[in-house]
Amino acid sequence: MPEPHVFDMATTLIPISEGHYQGQTSPDYANMAGPFGGVTAANLMQSVLLDPRLQGDPVSITVNFCAAVKTGGYTVTNVLKRDGKYIQHWSVELVQQGILAATASVITAQRKAEFSRDQVQKPTVRTLEDSDLPTMRAPLKWLERYDFRFVEGMPDFTGQTGSESQSAKTTQYVADLPPRPLDYLSLTSLSDAFVLRLLLVRPKLVPAGTVSLTTHFIGSRADIAEQGDAHLLGVADATRFHGNFHDQHMQLWSTNGKLLATGTQIVWFKS
Amino acid sequence: MPEPHVFDMATTLIPISEGHYQGQTSPDYANMAGPFGGVTAANLMQSVLLDPRLQGDPVSITVNFCAAVKTGGYTVTNVLKRDGKYIQHWSVELVQQGILAATASVITAQRKAEFSRDQVQKPTVRTLEDSDLPTMRAPLKWLERYDFRFVEGMPDFTGQTGSESQSAKTTQYVADLPPRPLDYLSLTSLSDAFVLRLLLVRPKLVPAGTVSLTTHFIGSRADIAEQGDAHLLGVADATRFHGNFHDQHMQLWSTNGKLLATGTQIVWFKS
Repeated sequence: MPEPHVFDMATTLIPISEGHYQGQTSPDYANMAGPFGGVTAANLMQSVLLDPRLQGDPVSITVNFCAAVKTGGYTVTNVLKRDGKYIQHWSVELVQQGILAATASVITAQRKAEFSRDQVQKPTVRTLEDSDLPTMRAPLKWLERYDFRFVEGMPDFTGQTGSESQSAKTTQYVADLPPRPLDYLSLTSLSDAFVLRLLLVRPKLVPAGTVSLTTHFIGSRADIAEQGDAHLLGVADATRFHGNFHDQHMQLWSTNGKLLATGTQIVWFKS
Repeated sequence: MPEPHVFDMATTLIPISEGHYQGQTSPDYANMAGPFGGVTAANLMQSVLLDPRLQGDPVSITVNFCAAVKTGGYTVTNVLKRDGKYIQHWSVELVQQGILAATASVITAQRKAEFSRDQVQKPTVRTLEDSDLPTMRAPLKWLERYDFRFVEGMPDFTGQTGSESQSAKTTQYVADLPPRPLDYLSLTSLSDAFVLRLLLVRPKLVPAGTVSLTTHFIGSRADIAEQGDAHLLGVADATRFHGNFHDQHMQLWSTNGKLLATGTQIVWFKS
């Protein structure tokens, strides 16, 4: 039997009772303080995906990061707040040693695909096969769990940029490392796999972190399945840094030009 | 004593005990089924703004609409889930006759303004003083509570468009009617004061509604105060309609060119 993928190990939840699970942080996805937020988000999503009451597929998740997750075990508890004809509303909490570390609201729905229209086109950029696309030298474990190829806006962790970038925009190809077929679980995590825009416009390390992360799953189950383990094209940007916060919005595109997910997060930073 | 503004009446909550309030729907903000979602969002925000434990200003709100709000009374209950040094996390529920109609997570924070940078510019469009800007003839009560002046993408409620619009984008000036000085409460509601993008690209009335609404308050208290009762410039667009859902993102700009709020919502529609 092949060893499970590190991402699957990092998102393994053991069912205790209806809506109650036990999880464990993974050193493979360590961030500056605690695990990478994308994997925390995926743990919260996982509790819904594993739930026998689930009907349909994820449509939306909002994760609120309340306190740093520490190395070790935690419980994930979901409540099915509303079970409608088409749509289910879930509330999820991640608790560690009595401390609420993260909450999430998850919306799932039974989806058909009768009316479909794309309003935006996948950006035309250099291809993944372009061997000149740089990858990242990064001091954080979780960054090693993704293969990044930067079209523009590669973050600089050396602190040697000298001058601040004018643009907060990153366009990157990104895939799990080692490769893993895309699913809703990994897409949840990938939606947070852009470094904080603050690091681009102000390459000075100050305490900072995502406070709230919202992802909308625009792609269908079929769109996601056909992607396999190929790199997604991701675009992230910010509109305004002000009063200790900045926003950060993103899009994730499939190889076939389908928009799979859009999202926004709000990031706190110390001045 | 002057009569209170209709918006203040529609967002009046009577404190019952810590975190518990009683509210009442307002016929002035009626939508197709139940009240305008923006006013429901403002009611949830109001419970936090009125709470004596609040320290700081709103940063983010995500509202999940679980069931139609019916005409009449409701309770709004908040829980301060996490009270940090800089940031507070609130969970709020609106319950009516034992039915959970809406949930929200609200993030508030103490904000200073040392590092500030704008990454995007206010769109250069026709001015509000341009008397050719059309306003909307609309069959819904809540639409009469805002003064809309359309730069582009005016929705057509007559069903006489004939052909579908290619663009899902609306650029509009918008202000409370009658005029009311802007604050976090009205900004919460204004963040939802764009009709569903579906109505632009597919002017055929089908059951549809916002399922989840996220707003980030990028502007500071001072930015909001200096706006007074002048019209905001709002821009809304969608990226993809697929599998019974579409996203809808928006920006709200002050007269002085400051980005006050950005947001995204996910909208369900019947095919």
